[in-house]
Amino acid sequence: MNFQKKLDKIIAKNNSLLSIGLDPDKNIIPNHLLSIDPLFEFNKAIIDATFDLVCVYKPNTAFYEAYGIKGIESLKKTIEYIKSAHPEIPIIADAKRADIGKTSEKYAKSVFDYFGCDAVTVNPYLGLDSIEPFLKYKDKGIIILCRTSNPSASDFQDLMIDNNPLYIHVARKVVEWDKKYHNCLMVVGATWPEQLKEIRKIAPEMFFLVPGIGSQGGDLKKTLQFGLTKNRSGLIIHSSSAIIYASDEKDFAQKAREVAKALRDEINKER
Amino acid sequence: MNFQKKLDKIIAKNNSLLSIGLDPDKNIIPNHLLSIDPLFEFNKAIIDATFDLVCVYKPNTAFYEAYGIKGIESLKKTIEYIKSAHPEIPIIADAKRADIGKTSEKYAKSVFDYFGCDAVTVNPYLGLDSIEPFLKYKDKGIIILCRTSNPSASDFQDLMIDNNPLYIHVARKVVEWDKKYHNCLMVVGATWPEQLKEIRKIAPEMFFLVPGIGSQGGDLKKTLQFGLTKNRSGLIIHSSSAIIYASDEKDFAQKAREVAKALRDEINKER
Repeated sequence: MNFQKKLDKIIAKNNSLLSIGLDPDKNIIPNHLLSIDPLFEFNKAIIDATFDLVCVYKPNTAFYEAYGIKGIESLKKTIEYIKSAHPEIPIIADAKRADIGKTSEKYAKSVFDYFGCDAVTVNPYLGLDSIEPFLKYKDKGIIILCRTSNPSASDFQDLMIDNNPLYIHVARKVVEWDKKYHNCLMVVGATWPEQLKEIRKIAPEMFFLVPGIGSQGGDLKKTLQFGLTKNRSGLIIHSSSAIIYASDEKDFAQKAREVAKALRDEINKER
Repeated sequence: MNFQKKLDKIIAKNNSLLSIGLDPDKNIIPNHLLSIDPLFEFNKAIIDATFDLVCVYKPNTAFYEAYGIKGIESLKKTIEYIKSAHPEIPIIADAKRADIGKTSEKYAKSVFDYFGCDAVTVNPYLGLDSIEPFLKYKDKGIIILCRTSNPSASDFQDLMIDNNPLYIHVARKVVEWDKKYHNCLMVVGATWPEQLKEIRKIAPEMFFLVPGIGSQGGDLKKTLQFGLTKNRSGLIIHSSSAIIYASDEKDFAQKAREVAKALRDEINKER
């Protein structure tokens, strides 16, 4: 099944636009998990407690690569666990990759063929030929950075070109690419609701992955007001540390569930 | 020793501005190497045949990630081999990473603390706070994409902002960041010598990593003419497939040496 269909189905089933980040950090995860494979054990507990509340899980590759080969093993195990226990939930590899074409082919091979993820985040700076090897996986979702949630996003993304900032030019290109490949999404940070509004005008139907709610201070209400599509969907609202680190005690998974449920329900109130 | 000093020393010792890419591909490497760890065996043969001709080795992470955990193991082993057999040769992780600050910290941890590389390539699209966690490793080289060598580089990098293309704005920011951190370099493709000339004006002393010679058709003569600094240095001229795949027979390492030596000498003729 292609990513978009899988996503629409789980949004309906779980009545949720919520993405949970699987970004385990040994310095933060509860002490009692510091056993053989703490990253996996932590993720598994979070997944077991939240699988009926999410529309995607989004592991960020950096959090695994930081621990070298052992970390990558935990990532692989986590993905395999989701695919076997909850095959209906799409997995986004938040990898922010891109390189010249023949190299991007290798990255695409890694996230899709080796890890078996359903979608990936990519960086647009190198242009179309750096993203095309991903786009050619027609059943996968290709999520292109447009306006990111971090404070320095403005360094380049806001530079004005013919009366429009760079991120608007990126959004227009993504819409153009999507006409050919039909599998594009964009990353638009919740920390910039006005920009989200502009980007929604350019891509009225496209799904956006929206990080920045929670610890980064994004505005949920405005995000939904400006970002929802006409059919009250089109957003994947992402939260990571506010959910997975809601508690560092033995009850962390239960607390994660409570925070996740509250956020899912808060989102649904505005839909 | 910091990256810049290590680089200057090996340039003098090997009389070379040549970077060789360690980008092994099981579909291309000679059949007789398809044994237990073909990626490592291939790299080791290339290294053993060329270590006195290069100023850096540059493994591209994508070529290892494509093979999953086994590939990452080969990368780790390759880096360890260079560090033990030829500790004087700097290793650039061509990873093109960048994410929001707390995530970039994890990537920096991976390339510098876990893999022990001397330098890394990063993507500027997310702005300073996405690059700062790398810059804070003061002894490492942080190589920021400016004007890349691929045909689609023009999609965004050439967009005009106040009469200057985006890549010029990136170059200016990098020069600004370098004033604080003193460890910045830039990627400038050999396929765009005129752009290289402009960027050299903005950063007269900075080292540039220059891919695109060889299979991508970059112009070596113009690259050197426009790119060398006043002291006839400042460029890391990168070549990968033209050297490492010079032959697919048993003599591949010897042939790689011949091509590498010819390119090193051709570069030196113009210095």
